[in-house]
Amino acid sequence: MWSKEEIQEALRELLSPKRYRHSLGVAQAAAELAVRYGADRKRAELAGLVHDCVKEQSLATMQALVQADGIRTDTMLYRSRALLHGPAGAAYVRREFGIEDEAVLAAISSHTVGRVGMTKLEKIVFLADYIEPNRDFPGVEELRALAREDLDRAVLAGFRSTLRHLLEEDAPIYEPTVTARNALLEEIEE
Amino acid sequence: MWSKEEIQEALRELLSPKRYRHSLGVAQAAAELAVRYGADRKRAELAGLVHDCVKEQSLATMQALVQADGIRTDTMLYRSRALLHGPAGAAYVRREFGIEDEAVLAAISSHTVGRVGMTKLEKIVFLADYIEPNRDFPGVEELRALAREDLDRAVLAGFRSTLRHLLEEDAPIYEPTVTARNALLEEIEE
Repeated sequence: MWSKEEIQEALRELLSPKRYRHSLGVAQAAAELAVRYGADRKRAELAGLVHDCVKEQSLATMQALVQADGIRTDTMLYRSRALLHGPAGAAYVRREFGIEDEAVLAAISSHTVGRVGMTKLEKIVFLADYIEPNRDFPGVEELRALAREDLDRAVLAGFRSTLRHLLEEDAPIYEPTVTARNALLEEIEE
Repeated sequence: MWSKEEIQEALRELLSPKRYRHSLGVAQAAAELAVRYGADRKRAELAGLVHDCVKEQSLATMQALVQADGIRTDTMLYRSRALLHGPAGAAYVRREFGIEDEAVLAAISSHTVGRVGMTKLEKIVFLADYIEPNRDFPGVEELRALAREDLDRAVLAGFRSTLRHLLEEDAPIYEPTVTARNALLEEIEE
């Protein structure tokens, strides 16, 4: 596996300066959440750092990555750069950076769309993507505060924020994300 | 089939005064939308009138109705009074009122959860439920105005309103409703 410095160097080539800063921010936020909620700090930091590594690649490249990795997708996922960059990113870092840690790969893969039965690490990376220090959107401060208090409720608020945005924009909603959000809701209520 | 007067008499027994008024309002709004958008006025009025006929029955009664009618449901639908009253209402009016018109039954059945490929009549009853004269919620006037201009966009706004509400309330979202909303969005964009 590549060193952190080698990975950062590669990311600087792969990403715009803004997205590279975002990646560092997610790594930092994920590390902090890991410490707070008793997850593996190094894994959280690594997953956060690389989570968007293919986000600036073409859809065709993302599709090739998931195909070559044997990752199964449905049609909506396969046709959307916004959705596919998670699974494609996991395929990329395994292939390029030699990251074989399945927990880290899962967190990269699910960071945008979520998953039923998310692990703590997956929740942490998902949430860090919303609250990292460079983020600025209405409600981000409330979400940061909630992230310090309750991981699950903060992840739920992340889902809410994304789904509400898609409703306002009249954009398609990926149904498995709703399923993941319902499952988390049930987990919270249990 | 029972006459309109017989059905109204039965509904007065089945429903609270408030919900009975709502039913008359939906019948009226559906009739107006049918005239505006070139659907069958009588079918729209009938479906609107009876759409909530079992809404005050127990879950067990609703389940018996759909079972006896051979209506297939999934677990989430089967366990929710709020969702099941549509299909159960269709089963009830077929059995009790002798309504056999499949277009009317479909509009009753889908009036809360929607459906992929909704007919014009289904859209009209779905929308009338939101905009009937007794309704009062933030945005209802805008929705009434939109309903006069564009049936599909008004139905889409109805979905938006319901899904947004479920997000705010941290309530489960029925995935097939999201699928129906996505399908309508695609229909509008084509």
